[in-house]
Amino acid sequence: MNIKEQVLKIGADAKKASRKLAKLSTRKKNAILEAMAEELDAQRAFIQAENAKDLAAGREAGLTNAMLDRLELTDDRIDGMIKGLRDVAVLSDPVGEEISTWNRPNGLEIHKRRVPIGVIGIIFESRPNVTCDAAALCFKTSNAVILRGGKEAIHSNLAIANAMQKGGETKGMPENCIQLIPTIDREAVKVMCQMTDYLDLIIPRGGESLIRAVMEMAHVPVIKHYTGVCHTYVDVSADLSMAWKIAENAKCQRPGVCNAMETLLVHKDIADDFLPKMAEIYDKNNVEMRGDIQTCKLIGLAKPATEEDWSTEYVDLILSIKVVDDVREAIEHINTYGSGHSDAIVSEDEKATVKFLNEVDAATVYVNASTRFTDGAEFGMGAEIGVSTDKLHARGPMGLEELTTYKYVIEGKGQIRE
Amino acid sequence: MNIKEQVLKIGADAKKASRKLAKLSTRKKNAILEAMAEELDAQRAFIQAENAKDLAAGREAGLTNAMLDRLELTDDRIDGMIKGLRDVAVLSDPVGEEISTWNRPNGLEIHKRRVPIGVIGIIFESRPNVTCDAAALCFKTSNAVILRGGKEAIHSNLAIANAMQKGGETKGMPENCIQLIPTIDREAVKVMCQMTDYLDLIIPRGGESLIRAVMEMAHVPVIKHYTGVCHTYVDVSADLSMAWKIAENAKCQRPGVCNAMETLLVHKDIADDFLPKMAEIYDKNNVEMRGDIQTCKLIGLAKPATEEDWSTEYVDLILSIKVVDDVREAIEHINTYGSGHSDAIVSEDEKATVKFLNEVDAATVYVNASTRFTDGAEFGMGAEIGVSTDKLHARGPMGLEELTTYKYVIEGKGQIRE
Repeated sequence: MNIKEQVLKIGADAKKASRKLAKLSTRKKNAILEAMAEELDAQRAFIQAENAKDLAAGREAGLTNAMLDRLELTDDRIDGMIKGLRDVAVLSDPVGEEISTWNRPNGLEIHKRRVPIGVIGIIFESRPNVTCDAAALCFKTSNAVILRGGKEAIHSNLAIANAMQKGGETKGMPENCIQLIPTIDREAVKVMCQMTDYLDLIIPRGGESLIRAVMEMAHVPVIKHYTGVCHTYVDVSADLSMAWKIAENAKCQRPGVCNAMETLLVHKDIADDFLPKMAEIYDKNNVEMRGDIQTCKLIGLAKPATEEDWSTEYVDLILSIKVVDDVREAIEHINTYGSGHSDAIVSEDEKATVKFLNEVDAATVYVNASTRFTDGAEFGMGAEIGVSTDKLHARGPMGLEELTTYKYVIEGKGQIRE
Repeated sequence: MNIKEQVLKIGADAKKASRKLAKLSTRKKNAILEAMAEELDAQRAFIQAENAKDLAAGREAGLTNAMLDRLELTDDRIDGMIKGLRDVAVLSDPVGEEISTWNRPNGLEIHKRRVPIGVIGIIFESRPNVTCDAAALCFKTSNAVILRGGKEAIHSNLAIANAMQKGGETKGMPENCIQLIPTIDREAVKVMCQMTDYLDLIIPRGGESLIRAVMEMAHVPVIKHYTGVCHTYVDVSADLSMAWKIAENAKCQRPGVCNAMETLLVHKDIADDFLPKMAEIYDKNNVEMRGDIQTCKLIGLAKPATEEDWSTEYVDLILSIKVVDDVREAIEHINTYGSGHSDAIVSEDEKATVKFLNEVDAATVYVNASTRFTDGAEFGMGAEIGVSTDKLHARGPMGLEELTTYKYVIEGKGQIRE
């Protein structure tokens, strides 16, 4: 078989598996997740041996230490995957839930019921534990999954996916529920993106270039987890000690993630009071600041922000800062340069707050809190497959519910249309 | 400006309009819809004069009488558009609705709130009244709309869209909320499909080739309203007099629409009792029947069904008929050849019914009712933009609610992530 035939067969097998999966009870699915956890533990040595092959190849290929670190499956990380499977087993199952029910005057009873999506493709980059996390969430929602990981982790990913499938089968999981594309050829991604007969959804997880490539090739629907160019706006009415804490947390607590702040906006009438101490705090945290002219003047910055800075996701200890005239200008800036991920206002003024929350066009908008809370676990969803920056189907953190769709089940007594 | 620049400008203008639209109150939107209705009435003579240009060009281009009929804006049809606008004004507005609210242990208050999608593109074919219907639903949900109609209706569509925009502006509608692509060049469709900076969603309405072309070009998310290859399965336990009525209604009441039945499946153990009388009923209705071998034998059909018949949407008085062994085979047939639109079982047996309703993978599944009920108005949604055969975001009839998305609005008291 050539690559196209190989991927299409994986697709057809997944579709078949999805029909069987849709019939499993929650109890059975949870037992299968437990069996997967046990099998991962049992195959720990094999998985680590396969991982060692990837690490050796990665060293040879000159991967950076940071990349090699992300690639490595330490005992701790395998324990993390095992715990993740058990955590997902405990979560409540959205499949089958009655979203709403109503009766029509002609006596038809309409049920809007939550059902699996079908077959989900996950295209991701380096970290092999994504294989386990993503497959577990898809399985819990009775979706078959086709995984396509980065080439540098191919041995590790295959070992994990195979262990999960094998472990699951001991408790009655249908075959081909969890499949990983076994080739590193990029042609496979293109075939996945266009096999509309078999794949119902693709979720790309990774850098901007991966996501853009998938979006441009895809005929299958895609939910994008794009960049997070997140803002905090400190209003003239802000409680300054609260604002300092929130702006420190949003930038510094974990700068490498998508819900970290990248741009701080400050109302011009409190900039004098607010910015100097804020700059001290950032200095202590080794944050590199880049400001507009006014900010540079106020806190003596050497490095002015360029036009490009305003739309950059640094994912690092770098921050752009801008002084704005009012909440209106803050909203305008965010809607122009932001990525629709997470944006916050710090304010004690209800009018400004309501305006900001209503008019900022983002998945998640905050008043008086850090943007760092945009996360499935922090929302109480238990686990997430990522944070959608798209507006359709799922926006913001995607948990189990967002991995389902619905169908209408209609009960009649012989009704016909007049 | 070349076509690309022209369409991108329309996109940028729509995006700006959508920000303003999101701020309009329901009361104001309803007043604007009324003003649109009045302007359509006031411009009736002009609209009909523009329509006459399209009709003349259509006659010259050799359009069929059926096509010319669909194109014509009679007084009745203009009255229909005017009534449609007033009907939409009466519908309740989903924008701003609180979908759910919960508190987190750290005191954060999370509100999941319904908001407009932003800018919606509608790409449609011949009938010019779609301009009015689609624009009204998008406007009511505070979405800016970019319409692209068929070339044969360009004068009619422009006249309608301009009248709606002009009428709306008298009551404070922002400019560029309703725009129609004024060129018939197909390049414009491609630009629309790929302008991800401005367009949040494309809904193609029309034949399979239009929908496929849009899907293949689009980088913007698409919700497809594909064909309806709908089935009725008559189970061994069926109340036969109910089954005859439902199977007649599903095929004959209005054969040219997507929720009409295209294939009838009959349990082998009642085929002898059921099919002969059914065939008589279809003969009376001038339905051309094409059957599998058993059906042909039972009711003396000359024309056997081919493999292609099973996946054909006839949209006409033609029906394919197949005898099946049991509900399992019926489900298998539907999941193989159906289009995931609407499928029904006629049965008095709960086990078979539950199996059918659970396992048929379609937007709408019925027991003991005609598939003809898959329709926004019949569901009580008031109006619909179409019937989605996709699984993401909207499945089945798309009413006002399906033209919205949501955002998370989170209220804190200074919370930071530990």
